[in-house]
Amino acid sequence: MASNPKFSVGLWSLDGTSDRFCRQGYSKTLSVTALIRNAAKVPGCQGIECHQTDFNQIGVKEYVRAMRANGLVTTNINTNVWGDAVFKHGAFTHRDKKVRGQALGEGKRAVDIARQVGSPGIGLWLGSDGHDYPFQADYQEQWRLLVDAIRQVAEYAAPDIKVGVEYKLKEPRNHIAVGCVGKALSICMELGLDNVGVALDFGHALMSKENPGESAVFLARHGKLFNVHFNDAYREWDDDMIPGTVNVWETLEFLYCCRITGYNGWYGLDMYPYREDGLAACSMAIRHLKSMIKLVDTLDEKALRRAQRTMDAIATEKVVGKLIFR
Amino acid sequence: MASNPKFSVGLWSLDGTSDRFCRQGYSKTLSVTALIRNAAKVPGCQGIECHQTDFNQIGVKEYVRAMRANGLVTTNINTNVWGDAVFKHGAFTHRDKKVRGQALGEGKRAVDIARQVGSPGIGLWLGSDGHDYPFQADYQEQWRLLVDAIRQVAEYAAPDIKVGVEYKLKEPRNHIAVGCVGKALSICMELGLDNVGVALDFGHALMSKENPGESAVFLARHGKLFNVHFNDAYREWDDDMIPGTVNVWETLEFLYCCRITGYNGWYGLDMYPYREDGLAACSMAIRHLKSMIKLVDTLDEKALRRAQRTMDAIATEKVVGKLIFR
Amino acid sequence: MASNPKFSVGLWSLDGTSDRFCRQGYSKTLSVTALIRNAAKVPGCQGIECHQTDFNQIGVKEYVRAMRANGLVTTNINTNVWGDAVFKHGAFTHRDKKVRGQALGEGKRAVDIARQVGSPGIGLWLGSDGHDYPFQADYQEQWRLLVDAIRQVAEYAAPDIKVGVEYKLKEPRNHIAVGCVGKALSICMELGLDNVGVALDFGHALMSKENPGESAVFLARHGKLFNVHFNDAYREWDDDMIPGTVNVWETLEFLYCCRITGYNGWYGLDMYPYREDGLAACSMAIRHLKSMIKLVDTLDEKALRRAQRTMDAIATEKVVGKLIFR
Amino acid sequence: MASNPKFSVGLWSLDGTSDRFCRQGYSKTLSVTALIRNAAKVPGCQGIECHQTDFNQIGVKEYVRAMRANGLVTTNINTNVWGDAVFKHGAFTHRDKKVRGQALGEGKRAVDIARQVGSPGIGLWLGSDGHDYPFQADYQEQWRLLVDAIRQVAEYAAPDIKVGVEYKLKEPRNHIAVGCVGKALSICMELGLDNVGVALDFGHALMSKENPGESAVFLARHGKLFNVHFNDAYREWDDDMIPGTVNVWETLEFLYCCRITGYNGWYGLDMYPYREDGLAACSMAIRHLKSMIKLVDTLDEKALRRAQRTMDAIATEKVVGKLIFR
Repeated sequence: MASNPKFSVGLWSLDGTSDRFCRQGYSKTLSVTALIRNAAKVPGCQGIECHQTDFNQIGVKEYVRAMRANGLVTTNINTNVWGDAVFKHGAFTHRDKKVRGQALGEGKRAVDIARQVGSPGIGLWLGSDGHDYPFQADYQEQWRLLVDAIRQVAEYAAPDIKVGVEYKLKEPRNHIAVGCVGKALSICMELGLDNVGVALDFGHALMSKENPGESAVFLARHGKLFNVHFNDAYREWDDDMIPGTVNVWETLEFLYCCRITGYNGWYGLDMYPYREDGLAACSMAIRHLKSMIKLVDTLDEKALRRAQRTMDAIATEKVVGKLIFR
Repeated sequence: MASNPKFSVGLWSLDGTSDRFCRQGYSKTLSVTALIRNAAKVPGCQGIECHQTDFNQIGVKEYVRAMRANGLVTTNINTNVWGDAVFKHGAFTHRDKKVRGQALGEGKRAVDIARQVGSPGIGLWLGSDGHDYPFQADYQEQWRLLVDAIRQVAEYAAPDIKVGVEYKLKEPRNHIAVGCVGKALSICMELGLDNVGVALDFGHALMSKENPGESAVFLARHGKLFNVHFNDAYREWDDDMIPGTVNVWETLEFLYCCRITGYNGWYGLDMYPYREDGLAACSMAIRHLKSMIKLVDTLDEKALRRAQRTMDAIATEKVVGKLIFR
Repeated sequence: MASNPKFSVGLWSLDGTSDRFCRQGYSKTLSVTALIRNAAKVPGCQGIECHQTDFNQIGVKEYVRAMRANGLVTTNINTNVWGDAVFKHGAFTHRDKKVRGQALGEGKRAVDIARQVGSPGIGLWLGSDGHDYPFQADYQEQWRLLVDAIRQVAEYAAPDIKVGVEYKLKEPRNHIAVGCVGKALSICMELGLDNVGVALDFGHALMSKENPGESAVFLARHGKLFNVHFNDAYREWDDDMIPGTVNVWETLEFLYCCRITGYNGWYGLDMYPYREDGLAACSMAIRHLKSMIKLVDTLDEKALRRAQRTMDAIATEKVVGKLIFR
Repeated sequence: MASNPKFSVGLWSLDGTSDRFCRQGYSKTLSVTALIRNAAKVPGCQGIECHQTDFNQIGVKEYVRAMRANGLVTTNINTNVWGDAVFKHGAFTHRDKKVRGQALGEGKRAVDIARQVGSPGIGLWLGSDGHDYPFQADYQEQWRLLVDAIRQVAEYAAPDIKVGVEYKLKEPRNHIAVGCVGKALSICMELGLDNVGVALDFGHALMSKENPGESAVFLARHGKLFNVHFNDAYREWDDDMIPGTVNVWETLEFLYCCRITGYNGWYGLDMYPYREDGLAACSMAIRHLKSMIKLVDTLDEKALRRAQRTMDAIATEKVVGKLIFR
């Protein structure tokens, strides 16, 4: 049974990049329209992810027109509640009710836009909700506010818009509240809402020292693997590199796990090619992923499952080693 | 309001140590009776934790007699299902029904012993349930077996014996299934049993890159902070060092979080003094912890909470910095 | 014997901050003159570090005037060869001779400025000289160019201007060539130039999983501890936090090691208070450091050395524990 | 130009394993003679590495006879000065002259054995020379003793026996003195002895967050890449896994770097298959390495070097990606 994956590109992966050392940027930023045009040039790309804040720059109508003209669909509207200094100390968990309300408003705006542009869901990566220093945060209050805020947005989004909570250990905060796959799932379980699930970012899972494939299965057991963000990394940081350039085995296993759990969502590229051309990086990313999916298709699954029953790594490696070592 | 903590010592912290490089051991192993006697010599120690396998060596009656003679109570019976080569590929999740049954039997034996010796609970640190190599494990089956096995032991333990699931990222397996606080909580939520909670090991939390204080609050929100294991570490590995010797701030914050969440369980020493004298190490551990609890008692909590509402680290550091910097 | 430390502030620690998520910044950038004025307001601050590129904005004369007016001396001119997109793939090791020449020119410009403003040395933190992806760099050529370029700048600086090579594991590159204390020292040894040494950044040492105190001694053995950059971090990343807020023991030990090796250079604050007020953060930093230096002054050094001879951690902890635990 | 690698097996990789949790072992230990016989059964294995302490169990003559009978040569005699409790606090740097003398004696004994059995060199992995707790060690004295001891052994070994200093970040100590490639090289530079170089362990390099290929080039620049130990790992710990099972790209790059630097020493397997059959693990290791060497042989080196000159990762990835992605 061959896989039939669908690829989406996070618009930011095609845009100009910067960091704290090179504030004016390693490359030029582009307009949303130009980014959409570039996404359409990525071989194999059928959809895009963007942020609600992209619509500060472009109207919904103009966006829809550009998407249609380029034959693309929207696969996710991510909620940017970290890119403005107002949210530097928090967004959904800000102790100032006004700021928190502003953040919640942005979450609902993401839902509105999702409905308007036909996106199946929104993303909640709450990058500024966390803490940097010991004793800085009142965790009791933080977690109460966090769960409450996600509930509010999720109820606003129900029943037609899915909400994918995206976990990440750190960056930009030294500790982000929703820091691992288990915390993300526990939020879903506490809320008990059908439209709340998890967006799994491959590099974030590595950063939390998880095996991304296991994390996918862990979520899928509860029907909560809602979206996938793809990239690669050296395990200590969110390096946001091109898939397959560092961790081949865990990427192959992740793709295999997506298949056996029946994941039929999108593979969204969430990269940050600091020094590379975004269009070239995204094109290579999908090429690599397609090539790895083909490798997974050649896997003797029956033999693998037989080997897994022995629990002996020599047995499983004999089966999977064939994908690369000949 | 002063804290009134209770200290327990994990017997193994007093015992001879070894590692893969020095198999015959850095120090001599002692009999259970000798370990109990030594525990009683640790100033401030009122209880002990041990393993069900310790009762291979000592009868329950003899154990109870020794404990009474030394004025100690049992605070936890840990389930050792990793110390025998039969469990090298797994215990509660072993694919061989016979081995899995043997592991489950050990879990129930821990419950039996807990009842016999008056321990309030048992511990489930499932150190061999995980995987080492990519593709080695069938995660779907692993998680199904894991949750099912914990349920069986928990139902056997209900209603009087608490079951504390102890998470750890790795060691001895490269990936342990229950690897972070969120996964541990999600198991509790899935099972929905009153007597299933989590044992939080300070060093394990650090290893999973958590802030242990936040993890305590995260669990306490759900009434699931059942037991605490104390030690210290450099964050990448389970170094099992003497508390307070590496991370002073996070230990202070953890003690503070235990207090504000109303944790009234034990602080159990789970150390592994490879090259140090166990008795001296445990004595120093409680001395350090008592000293840190006193420091926390001097904390101006009202000022801290006020500072936390600003969300500004400068404000909170001004309050807590006084504990050490004068 | 009391220590008599001298504190300097890296101007950037007082400036507006940004990161890749909040490109427009968490706080406003200031002019060099305003930064100097703020440095003078930091209690205990006697000097500043800046970059040669700051002089794109301010003339040398105006700078000297401002420094004098504020009673400050320049302790280091850092060479910024990473903040401009032209250096995104490398500076001293760029394969394009023209770009490499431009980088070398900047290094020499830092020397020129150091002479003009009376700075004892320059800093070479070569943040863009490294690689991100496997196979990306020709390491043979990279190391040849690196050593050659440092030699050129050092010869230009000799004999009156010291050159401090600052190592860092990563960020902004995934791998920076001069990534650990040993590599930095080996460059000094290969060059054999009196005016080439190492700038040790506390957080960089932690990131390379070193014990900063040991690194200081390691360098001092060869007379190569030229400059110190202070901050604190969680060991996995260059968090650039306020000293003493995470790692108290290793900071105390580092200060002790600086003392016993006779380090008489500056302690330069190299922080990046993303969300905090720079002036408040720097003021707290020096307050913390002074407090920790006082603690070290109370250390019973004779007892410590006696304990160290036993090699037993219990013995050494008994001596140093008194600094915090009473 | 095809590579012609020579493979050696560390005897311990074939032996029974244990760890602190399973002290009696995951598998049975074998006699040296049985290990040699098993080494000969590993397809592609031409030599072995062992420890001087193996000769507590077998006489030199009997060893030589067994080696000849099995058609194997000795490629390295490693100095075990960490497996006995006497060395728990240090060996070459022990503050007790008697213990230090005993350790030095073991180093010289390794040299003697190397001469007797025809090994080209000895290994100095000084696993117990380091520290666990802050303030525990007197680093000034430690480094003085360390360099002095290595010099003594090296002079004893000169001119015919090579001494390979093997660096490792930690385990069994929390901090090992010779912790990174740069420190190892700096020792060689300080000593200035022709027969002192470095043994690079692939997993140790990863643990120190190095790119092993770059480390190989870094050492080869100074003619100091003396020996290679092969395995694989997840980068945070010395997992000692089968090569190629985690990090394919960095292994390929390392093999490429060995080739371009003209490394003509041995590839010695230094694995620790805790739960796997040693013979099967070593056989798979060489099979994987041979397969990867073949892949490297297909690399278009000219195209790679051309791409590296652009410094653009997209360009280099296009060349090397072909090795796996088709």
